Amino acid sequence: MLSVAEALDAILHEVKPAPPVAVELADALGLITAEAVVSDIDSPPFDKAVMDGFALRSGDLDGAETRLRIVEHVIAGMLPSVAVTSGNATRIMTGAPLPQGADSVVKVEDSRNDPPGPSSVGGTVIIQGIAEPGQNIVRRGASLKVGQTVLPAGRLVRPQEIGALAEVGKEHLSVHARPKVGILATGDELVPVGEQPGLGQIRNSNEAMLGAQTQRAGGQPVLLGIARDNPAELRERIAAGLRCDVLLLSGGVSEGTHDLVPAELAALGVRNVFHKVHLRPGKPLWFGVWKGKPAQAGSWPTYVFGLPGNPVSSLVCFELFVRPCLRRLLGFEPAVPAPVRARLVQEHVAQGERPTYNPARLAWDAQGPRVEPVRWHGSSDLQAMVQANALAVFPGGGATYQPDTFVEVIPFDRSTDGSI
Amino acid sequence: MLSVAEALDAILHEVKPAPPVAVELADALGLITAEAVVSDIDSPPFDKAVMDGFALRSGDLDGAETRLRIVEHVIAGMLPSVAVTSGNATRIMTGAPLPQGADSVVKVEDSRNDPPGPSSVGGTVIIQGIAEPGQNIVRRGASLKVGQTVLPAGRLVRPQEIGALAEVGKEHLSVHARPKVGILATGDELVPVGEQPGLGQIRNSNEAMLGAQTQRAGGQPVLLGIARDNPAELRERIAAGLRCDVLLLSGGVSEGTHDLVPAELAALGVRNVFHKVHLRPGKPLWFGVWKGKPAQAGSWPTYVFGLPGNPVSSLVCFELFVRPCLRRLLGFEPAVPAPVRARLVQEHVAQGERPTYNPARLAWDAQGPRVEPVRWHGSSDLQAMVQANALAVFPGGGATYQPDTFVEVIPFDRSTDGSI
Repeated sequence: MLSVAEALDAILHEVKPAPPVAVELADALGLITAEAVVSDIDSPPFDKAVMDGFALRSGDLDGAETRLRIVEHVIAGMLPSVAVTSGNATRIMTGAPLPQGADSVVKVEDSRNDPPGPSSVGGTVIIQGIAEPGQNIVRRGASLKVGQTVLPAGRLVRPQEIGALAEVGKEHLSVHARPKVGILATGDELVPVGEQPGLGQIRNSNEAMLGAQTQRAGGQPVLLGIARDNPAELRERIAAGLRCDVLLLSGGVSEGTHDLVPAELAALGVRNVFHKVHLRPGKPLWFGVWKGKPAQAGSWPTYVFGLPGNPVSSLVCFELFVRPCLRRLLGFEPAVPAPVRARLVQEHVAQGERPTYNPARLAWDAQGPRVEPVRWHGSSDLQAMVQANALAVFPGGGATYQPDTFVEVIPFDRSTDGSI
Repeated sequence: MLSVAEALDAILHEVKPAPPVAVELADALGLITAEAVVSDIDSPPFDKAVMDGFALRSGDLDGAETRLRIVEHVIAGMLPSVAVTSGNATRIMTGAPLPQGADSVVKVEDSRNDPPGPSSVGGTVIIQGIAEPGQNIVRRGASLKVGQTVLPAGRLVRPQEIGALAEVGKEHLSVHARPKVGILATGDELVPVGEQPGLGQIRNSNEAMLGAQTQRAGGQPVLLGIARDNPAELRERIAAGLRCDVLLLSGGVSEGTHDLVPAELAALGVRNVFHKVHLRPGKPLWFGVWKGKPAQAGSWPTYVFGLPGNPVSSLVCFELFVRPCLRRLLGFEPAVPAPVRARLVQEHVAQGERPTYNPARLAWDAQGPRVEPVRWHGSSDLQAMVQANALAVFPGGGATYQPDTFVEVIPFDRSTDGSI
């Protein structure tokens, strides 16, 4: 049976980033660029003042009081129309273009008008001191020049990237497309969420939960409902699901007589890469690849996960295995984010032969990350997951972990840009 | 002029969580519950086996070899039909309901069949040792009982909450609604993103950027285009925008002669709470409240932000002021997440009278959070923001900060559930 690391390797060996697709700029938020974008403008587009003051020729000032005639008043969004010649100055506001002839801006606080009062064109301003050429000016192209790369390929699109790309006129952007993720729950015991379960029945909570996990991981969920434990129905519903980029099946992958999913996947030509992983919960996990998509559908493979039917197992297998697959398709690197090493706050007794991914609460205190395993009643206990924000990893074999031991923790949520 | 802290207090003094609204369960992802949800089921719905093995009466075992007759084979999703009486056992699979009469499950590894081979109904199983009552069984209602609270009000809906709510049949959920955030850029210098800017013109990058920031903060952007610097047009466009829950105006709030926004807001009856905040970039920020919404529109106030037109100022004012407003409306507490205290990795010279929110890169090393300010060319330099994932805060007055000084850092993105 594969270890978790081996299973991840086997998945990532199969999965390549999805082919580039052009989307509208707003729809690129949260996706990874598949092209480098260069600027068609200089930014700022002209030399501009970064202070309210007077644009003048620095050579006019000699340290003593200098009187200059105000020839124009320019504000942001206006173009100056008068060149500044010796003995003259232009009243200029922050963000306004520097007039021709001027090489320096003196702050309004370092000037006074003569006569005192508001500065007006034709009036006189008195400036004491000197000015360096270029002072209080940002030069044309200082932050960005025509032809310069605004954003390379392989970068996450956040609001500031949207802004920077809008600034250079990028209305459509090539990104790795959001994968369509089909979600098909299987099992005679399932009833839709809106129905009252009878004896031995449970509601189909996995569809909604896996849909939400898919959204959080950047995929586009395609809800396919419930398939019954009947070979013909299963095969037909799975065949429809294979049109997606990723297909998640929940249930039917253990080894009971009603676990029909592996046989139907085989019959449909889905190549099995592995079945079963050495972990708890989630051991029955099945993973395979289907290359039968028609050429007009892009002939990209479909990656198929047979997830265990119990909701906690299903949630854990998504976080450990499906999320890295989606990250790789979306172009995120690394596909498997590094776990956090956190300090156990209490003694923990791990049981069982298999490595256990225990629901846990991760928090930060003055000493760094700390983790507290949540008590849980096995693979159907979603209530434990509601109390948790992470999985704490305990290697197999069973052991008692003392407080202050460091263990690996996999947070359910983390910032996408690595900031925290 | 208000400090940043005073401006935040003034905003949060005005803003209350948005009224509850019922949404479909899938649409509640990322929102905060406005009702407590109780269970209509026991989970698990019956006593069930957590191991593959044999369900039996613990009193039948005495430590020596005991031979039991196999009376039934039950798998998950089936209901047992035969009660286990003394001398009998039921072959049971993980997740299957415990048959009547049985009080214990012995693992299959601790049994052998007589004759050796697959266990079949009518055959005999030999078990050595004893069994504790209740072993390898999870009791009905162990994780959740009818009437028990699944989720209180005020909690973030993540995928596991979606699963837990689906399990108890919750198709619609009361949450604090996603606020509609109108975004109206103002200024004669703006051209749409798809056009080539002429001399003195720039593309309207703020609309797309603020839309993306709004989405990231949980709001629903309503893009309102560009309004020209013309009182009649401005007033009409702002009036339309006031139908949203929050209205973001960009540009027109400085004190140039073309900065018409405050006057038009006043004319429309928007009460100004403050104008100008002591920070860099973002000083011209304007905030107000409008209570003129017709009763049939819910008569909730509209919160109006006049953001500076420069993209970096606009981005910073959103992160510092609009995001807490949206968090409060959405029901997130605290509305202002605690900043990170991070170690400066290099000397930094802060300039200017106002506290500066400098684009920066936040990362984690073995010693904890570290921050590196990004070089920037002022409030139009979005390229600096593309290099950044946070804002580093330098108190006003200008100073040289030595390496290893701790400074406050505001990350652009962080996990929503506090895990990291």
